[in-house]
Amino acid sequence: MNDILIRKAEINDMFSVLGLIKELAKFEKEPKSVLINVDDLIKDGFCDNPKFSCLVAEKNKKVVGMAIFYGRYSTWKGKTLHLEDLIVKKKFRGQGIGKELYKKFIEIAQKEGVRRAEWVALDWNVDAIKFYKNSGAKVLNDWKTIQIDKKSIKNYLIKK
Amino acid sequence: MNDILIRKAEINDMFSVLGLIKELAKFEKEPKSVLINVDDLIKDGFCDNPKFSCLVAEKNKKVVGMAIFYGRYSTWKGKTLHLEDLIVKKKFRGQGIGKELYKKFIEIAQKEGVRRAEWVALDWNVDAIKFYKNSGAKVLNDWKTIQIDKKSIKNYLIKK
Repeated sequence: MNDILIRKAEINDMFSVLGLIKELAKFEKEPKSVLINVDDLIKDGFCDNPKFSCLVAEKNKKVVGMAIFYGRYSTWKGKTLHLEDLIVKKKFRGQGIGKELYKKFIEIAQKEGVRRAEWVALDWNVDAIKFYKNSGAKVLNDWKTIQIDKKSIKNYLIKK
Repeated sequence: MNDILIRKAEINDMFSVLGLIKELAKFEKEPKSVLINVDDLIKDGFCDNPKFSCLVAEKNKKVVGMAIFYGRYSTWKGKTLHLEDLIVKKKFRGQGIGKELYKKFIEIAQKEGVRRAEWVALDWNVDAIKFYKNSGAKVLNDWKTIQIDKKSIKNYLIKK
């Protein structure tokens, strides 16, 4: 693992980060769902009030993995940390790179003193779920994610 | 519905808001899970960089409902809006107050131009889920929520 460097992402990494986002979307069977571009990532992640933090995993000076996370708020626990994406390039999997990114994220959660860190995983991604459970995380089977998209938001407000 | 006022919450409302948070936690069968207090809500919601926004529903000058939400970031859709809590005091339910709070939240999502608004619901809360589906929202059955608490964060880092 000595040849893997986990570091804070810089603006110049955003092209590689977008490539990883698209690779994950393909793995999650939604390749056409990625609507953001490199400019969005730079604008949203490197402004005065950034919408997310990003770590990258570097091997031989190439970005081969990344983790994106941001703060959320629980009315039970106060400030929490949400891991939005954790991705390792396909051909670099099985080398413990994902684990290093996860560990860094958990270290940041501890440093920030949050009472909870959280994320979501697809139920068929059993290897990931097993990894998370082994780390001490809990899978909440009774909570359902609900989403409304821009078109449905518009339709709802027209009808009301 | 003319006697219901939906407005932005003020610092003075936080005592009532905490009461509603505790009422929801009881309904969700986790009454002891609420670890935050009024001071936390004031500190986190009314600072330079607030962690959440809060709407309250007022009837006869009393707070009878509230909605708490904040921005999140999707690596597919960019900025999104997350509804953390939407609560109406038990004896005021069935009067459309929750619907007014939800509508206001959806209006804010439209105004902010997000491509997605989202939240979670307990799978046995069938009335809420039916209401959300009727509004045009989708329930994502294949995504699981995963959480790690402060104690497990500490344990994980000790073991590594």
